[in-house]
Amino acid sequence: MGIIIKDALAVLPVNGEDVIGKHSIYIDGDKIVGIDNEPEGFKADTTIDGKDRLVIPGLINAHTHTYMSMMRNCADDLSFMDWLFKTIDPIEGQLRDEDAYWGSLLGQLEMIKSGTTMFNDQQMHIHQTTKAVMESGMRASICRGLVGGEYDRNDVRLNQALEEIEDGKKCDRLSFFFGPHAPYTCGPEYLRMCADVAKEKGLGIHIHLSESVTESENMMKDHNCTPIEYALNAGVFDVPTIAAHCVQVTPDDIKILADKKVSVVTNPASNMKLGNGFAPVPEMMAAGVNVCLGTDGAASNNSQNMFREMGYLSLIHKGTHKTPQCISAKEVFKIATINGAKALGKGDEIGSIEVGKKADLAILRLDVPSMMPNNNLLAALCYSASGSEVDSVIINGQIIMEKREVKTIDEERVYFEIREMCKRLGLADKTY
Amino acid sequence: MGIIIKDALAVLPVNGEDVIGKHSIYIDGDKIVGIDNEPEGFKADTTIDGKDRLVIPGLINAHTHTYMSMMRNCADDLSFMDWLFKTIDPIEGQLRDEDAYWGSLLGQLEMIKSGTTMFNDQQMHIHQTTKAVMESGMRASICRGLVGGEYDRNDVRLNQALEEIEDGKKCDRLSFFFGPHAPYTCGPEYLRMCADVAKEKGLGIHIHLSESVTESENMMKDHNCTPIEYALNAGVFDVPTIAAHCVQVTPDDIKILADKKVSVVTNPASNMKLGNGFAPVPEMMAAGVNVCLGTDGAASNNSQNMFREMGYLSLIHKGTHKTPQCISAKEVFKIATINGAKALGKGDEIGSIEVGKKADLAILRLDVPSMMPNNNLLAALCYSASGSEVDSVIINGQIIMEKREVKTIDEERVYFEIREMCKRLGLADKTY
Repeated sequence: MGIIIKDALAVLPVNGEDVIGKHSIYIDGDKIVGIDNEPEGFKADTTIDGKDRLVIPGLINAHTHTYMSMMRNCADDLSFMDWLFKTIDPIEGQLRDEDAYWGSLLGQLEMIKSGTTMFNDQQMHIHQTTKAVMESGMRASICRGLVGGEYDRNDVRLNQALEEIEDGKKCDRLSFFFGPHAPYTCGPEYLRMCADVAKEKGLGIHIHLSESVTESENMMKDHNCTPIEYALNAGVFDVPTIAAHCVQVTPDDIKILADKKVSVVTNPASNMKLGNGFAPVPEMMAAGVNVCLGTDGAASNNSQNMFREMGYLSLIHKGTHKTPQCISAKEVFKIATINGAKALGKGDEIGSIEVGKKADLAILRLDVPSMMPNNNLLAALCYSASGSEVDSVIINGQIIMEKREVKTIDEERVYFEIREMCKRLGLADKTY
Repeated sequence: MGIIIKDALAVLPVNGEDVIGKHSIYIDGDKIVGIDNEPEGFKADTTIDGKDRLVIPGLINAHTHTYMSMMRNCADDLSFMDWLFKTIDPIEGQLRDEDAYWGSLLGQLEMIKSGTTMFNDQQMHIHQTTKAVMESGMRASICRGLVGGEYDRNDVRLNQALEEIEDGKKCDRLSFFFGPHAPYTCGPEYLRMCADVAKEKGLGIHIHLSESVTESENMMKDHNCTPIEYALNAGVFDVPTIAAHCVQVTPDDIKILADKKVSVVTNPASNMKLGNGFAPVPEMMAAGVNVCLGTDGAASNNSQNMFREMGYLSLIHKGTHKTPQCISAKEVFKIATINGAKALGKGDEIGSIEVGKKADLAILRLDVPSMMPNNNLLAALCYSASGSEVDSVIINGQIIMEKREVKTIDEERVYFEIREMCKRLGLADKTY
């Protein structure tokens, strides 16, 4: 299928800098095949008028748990450990596999509608998120969350994870990481086993690290090291690693993350909401760490909208550092796009608008108050846009949303199933 | 004109607490005349189906400069004093009066589309914001920004302010404050004169206080006091005062603000963006200060969307205080509604859905991903909503927006005028 986006403003990389200019973009199959120059023999089935439109590379949500969208707003204003172990875990215990499928579709609906084209998911219900991705048309990197104590190659979850990875090979929009949950839920031997299996299978690791103060304090008490050092010692960083959170990190931790080329996913809303604080993002960037951006699950954020997250990222460090110069809109936009692509091993495939890359794009309206005047649109994306400016979304060359209508997901059915599920789980508010 | 909103979920105050339940709301003329009980002889010209809808009191943006919306994204990532004196002031100097009119309409469009029904504006162009409000149908409290050194009752700006107030009496949606800009732009005698005139005329004062570190340091060097003490000494707090920002405040300052019943408007996005930091909101609330919420102008925020602002307010203090309990979604919602009404002297008229109050309402869609599941909607308003859920807006009993179409403002004309203006002022990006 050929698509032209004609004479639109577009964010394109020029010598490593994002620059906005007027361009026409040619898409054939799953790829961008031309920018401004129409390839020979190109045939367009669809032409999208670029007037008053801005084309951006699809945003990459580098850490989430999409199935948790059905737990949105069910556990607010609680401390991290109470949130996790007293509220979320008991709900998890009651979930049926298909609840996770509908939950993931809800999260994906929210992401598509706010311009995200790929997400990196850690989940607990084998085959459910992958099934939802196959249907939604999104691109995703998925891992099954792993927790345990011993070095046990017969671990049930471990083998479920490997089975899911094998099964997922049939969809080219799916890729996989290996997902030991966190140092406080994985004993040192279990974590080493995960690292060994990841190395053998050529997989990267997606792990939560240094999220709460309690985690760091307990780690120091029990193992006399930081969570980052604990993961280092278990061999985790010997494979490409995506570390979510990294809030409570020391200068030495930052050095380790940089040296071992760990990609860090910052999750500002979740970290604030659970009282974990602010990750030292400017310091990690200065040390050369590849920082990317994630929403975390909707149970802790409570949103899957990357525009909200770009807003938080672009502002909070200016507040904590009392300097407006410590992170720029341009840097935030890279963090939300190409840095996420690099973390997921896809820096050559997605994350920017370039000939030969996959056609993963979001098209935003510029004739709306939040984008007006159209004078510095990279700033507008971070400081003014809400995500509702996203008018159309193309993933892997397929038009997934057109004029805000998602073509691959039956929205009403999703809402119906989510409502029924919440009634069953007792999550619906009793007053109505 | 009679309007029924039939069988909708609605946020209503019950014994001082916001509670959500299913209700029908009856509107006649500019007022809410019934909730659940249809008044005798009531005739509806319009019935709004409440299925999948949430009705909230319109949000109150308690500190902004709407005309500055035309300067959105023109001065980012600069220090406060460079932002104000090197970038914004030179643009201000080139503005024609009608630029301020179109700028204000742009800001009001953005506010209406994100559920704000009243704003408190400090502006520099006499008659322009008032003219825009008369046309838009919004409710507003307006003051002309005043700067000067001497005790001079013949001051030009002072008399412009008084003239505008006189002229504004013809619109019942308009009210006025008196607007000495800030301690760093008003000498002690000028500020005393403003306080005296406000007292004589029965007006409140709307002032910027303790925004930047530089302001506080200079004040201590030059006057050996804090900006709050400076305003206290000039007699400002002898009239009802709305103090914007109050970021750099001491425990003694907080005591003064509480004792003198000063309403504080916190502007989290602007304070972060300009590197001013975080106002001690939980501490001010604990001291009994009436805290309300504002966006500040779009030149520093860069948004007029109060949902963004509720998101920031609900999260940043959990981050700085490392505790999720220090401010709740319920408190944030009050701050964005009834507290603003009280600050503006309108606590009996607006800020909540009650029989006898003005019909200033926003109606949100619940059948959208960000509000799903519909299980704790006050949390959803703060943590998940982007503002685009707002489907219809009623102000003073008039339907101002219906299904996202604003009926009082010609959107395309506003965008055209803003674009022309930005070209003339050299604000349009040169690359496109």
